[in-house]
Amino acid sequence: MPDPRFAKGAAFTQDGYVPIADAKISVLDWGFTRSDCTYDVVHVVKGGFFRLADHLDRFEASMAKRRLAPPQGRAEMEAILHRVVALSGLQDSYVAMVALRGRPRVGGSRRPADCENHFIAYAVPWVDVMTPDVQARGGHLWIASTPRVPDASFDPTVKNYMWGDLTTGLLEAHDHGFDTAVLLDAQGFVTEGPGFNVFIVKDGAVLTPDRGSLGGITRRSVLDLCAAEGIAAAVAPITREMLEDADEIFTATTAGGVMPIARLNQRILGNDRPGPLSAKLRALYWQRHEEGWHRTPVRYEDAG
Amino acid sequence: MPDPRFAKGAAFTQDGYVPIADAKISVLDWGFTRSDCTYDVVHVVKGGFFRLADHLDRFEASMAKRRLAPPQGRAEMEAILHRVVALSGLQDSYVAMVALRGRPRVGGSRRPADCENHFIAYAVPWVDVMTPDVQARGGHLWIASTPRVPDASFDPTVKNYMWGDLTTGLLEAHDHGFDTAVLLDAQGFVTEGPGFNVFIVKDGAVLTPDRGSLGGITRRSVLDLCAAEGIAAAVAPITREMLEDADEIFTATTAGGVMPIARLNQRILGNDRPGPLSAKLRALYWQRHEEGWHRTPVRYEDAG
Repeated sequence: MPDPRFAKGAAFTQDGYVPIADAKISVLDWGFTRSDCTYDVVHVVKGGFFRLADHLDRFEASMAKRRLAPPQGRAEMEAILHRVVALSGLQDSYVAMVALRGRPRVGGSRRPADCENHFIAYAVPWVDVMTPDVQARGGHLWIASTPRVPDASFDPTVKNYMWGDLTTGLLEAHDHGFDTAVLLDAQGFVTEGPGFNVFIVKDGAVLTPDRGSLGGITRRSVLDLCAAEGIAAAVAPITREMLEDADEIFTATTAGGVMPIARLNQRILGNDRPGPLSAKLRALYWQRHEEGWHRTPVRYEDAG
Repeated sequence: MPDPRFAKGAAFTQDGYVPIADAKISVLDWGFTRSDCTYDVVHVVKGGFFRLADHLDRFEASMAKRRLAPPQGRAEMEAILHRVVALSGLQDSYVAMVALRGRPRVGGSRRPADCENHFIAYAVPWVDVMTPDVQARGGHLWIASTPRVPDASFDPTVKNYMWGDLTTGLLEAHDHGFDTAVLLDAQGFVTEGPGFNVFIVKDGAVLTPDRGSLGGITRRSVLDLCAAEGIAAAVAPITREMLEDADEIFTATTAGGVMPIARLNQRILGNDRPGPLSAKLRALYWQRHEEGWHRTPVRYEDAG
C-alpha cells in the first residue's frame, strides 16, 4: 500500500524524500533568485515512464550547457525518479527533475562556479496544459504581440523556467478570451507557446518551427509517428502568414501530448474542431503508449 | 537583545516570521517554475533604510505591470520589512521583498489569474556585488558576447530573476579572468550587467544607458548627486564604441553603491584604478548616507 502522506505527490529535495507539500527550496537559492537552473518533465501513464532515456539525455545536455553538476549521476537520478513515483503510488503522473545552481559554498561569493549545485525531483498527479474539454473542442490559440526571447540571448533548447515572455503572451491570450498563446520572434517567425511546441499542417504535410523552440520530446514523437505513417514532416522556418494560412494547427507537450487547435485569433480552422490529421496523430500517440512504445515500467517496489 | 535564531537573517514567508535558514518556497510555486515574480532590494546602513519609499514605489509599479497582487498592502509590506531587519538585529543589511505568483487556487488551472499571489521578505547580512578589494582596485569588466534580452520581450524596468543572459555573460567574464560582465543589446548598445547599472564618463560628463536596463535606485542617486554637484549627466544611448572610448566607467547597484571599473576587456582605464569622477561620486554617495540622505530609521523596537 502506498504511504498516504505521499498521496498528493512525492519529492526528493535537500531534505530527502518528502511529501510534495513539504518540497521546498531556499529563498536564497540561485535556482530561484537568478532562475539559474534547468529542468525536465517526463510523464508516467498506466505505470510506465514514456521516453525516460530521451528525457534524461536532454536533461544531461541542458545541465552541461548551463554548467550545472549536481552530485548525483544519471543512474542515481533515474533511481530517484522511480522512487518518487513509487512513493506517490501514482499510475499517471507528471514527473519533474530540476538541477539548481544552489548557493555559494563560501559566503559573499557572487560566482556561479562557487555554488553547491543540487538536484530535486517530484512526482505529482497529471495536469494537462489544456484541460480535457478544451482538447476535445480544439484549443483557441492567440498570436501574442510580445516577441519570444531570441535564441542568441538564451538557448531555448535548454528547458528553463524563465517564462516572462510566455506569461505575458498567456495573459494577453486570456484577455482576449483565448486558451493559450503562440509567440513569434522579432523577425515574425513562429516559435512556441507556454509549455508546448506548435505544428502546422498544410496540404497534408506537417511542419514545426526550427527556431525559438524547445527540442520537445513529444515533438520528436510526432515526427517519428509521421515517418512511420508516411506523412511528410519537417522542422522548418514558419512565418506568421504560413501559420494563418494553415489547414490545421496542433500543439505538442509532455503535459498533454498532441493537442489540436480549432481557432487562431479570429480565424476558425476547419469546422471549429480538431483537424483530421491532428486527430489522427493524437490518437496514434496514445495508441502507441498502450502498445508499450518507449515504455519503462516504474519500479513501484522501490517505495519501501 | 536580538534573538540568536535570527542572527544570520530573518524572513517573512507563508510560514510567518522564520530564521533565514527556514525561509523556503514550494517547488511548485510559479514564482519558481515560471520565474513569475518580481522583487526589489533595499539596503540598510547603520540602522537606516536608504530610499525605502523609492524602492516601494518601484516594487509596486513592477507588481502592477506583472499583475501580481499579494494580500498585503504597502503599509503592511513596509512594516514587514522593518520587522525582518529588527528580528535579525542587523545594522547593515540587504533587505529583499518578493511578490510571487504562487499556485492555482483550483487544481489543474494553468491560468495566472487563478493563482494565490504571496509576498515574502528577508533581511540578510550585506553582500556587495563586487568584493571590497575589487572595489578598491577597480573592477575588471568584460563585454559579453551574449546579447541582453530585448526590452520588447521582457520589460527590464520590472526587477526580475530571469538572469539567463546575465549569468551566461558572467560565466564568460570569469572564463576570461574578469570580475563581471556588461551586456550589449542585439543592436550593439550598452545595457547593464548582472545586478548593476553601468555609467561612462567622457570629457567630464556622465552617461548611463537608456535601454535594456533597470531603472536603478542607485542610478537615480548618482544622477541626483551629479545634479547637485553641477556635473553634466544624462540617460542616453551608449554604443559599444562609446564604452570602449570612455575616460572612466563605473557601475551602480544597491548591493555595493558606486563601484568604479579599472579595466574593460584588454583596455586599462586611466592608471588601472578608479577614475577621479567615479571615486568622487562613490565618496559622495556614502557621505550622503552619513548625513541621513533619504534615511528611514529601522524600527528595531518592532522585533518583540
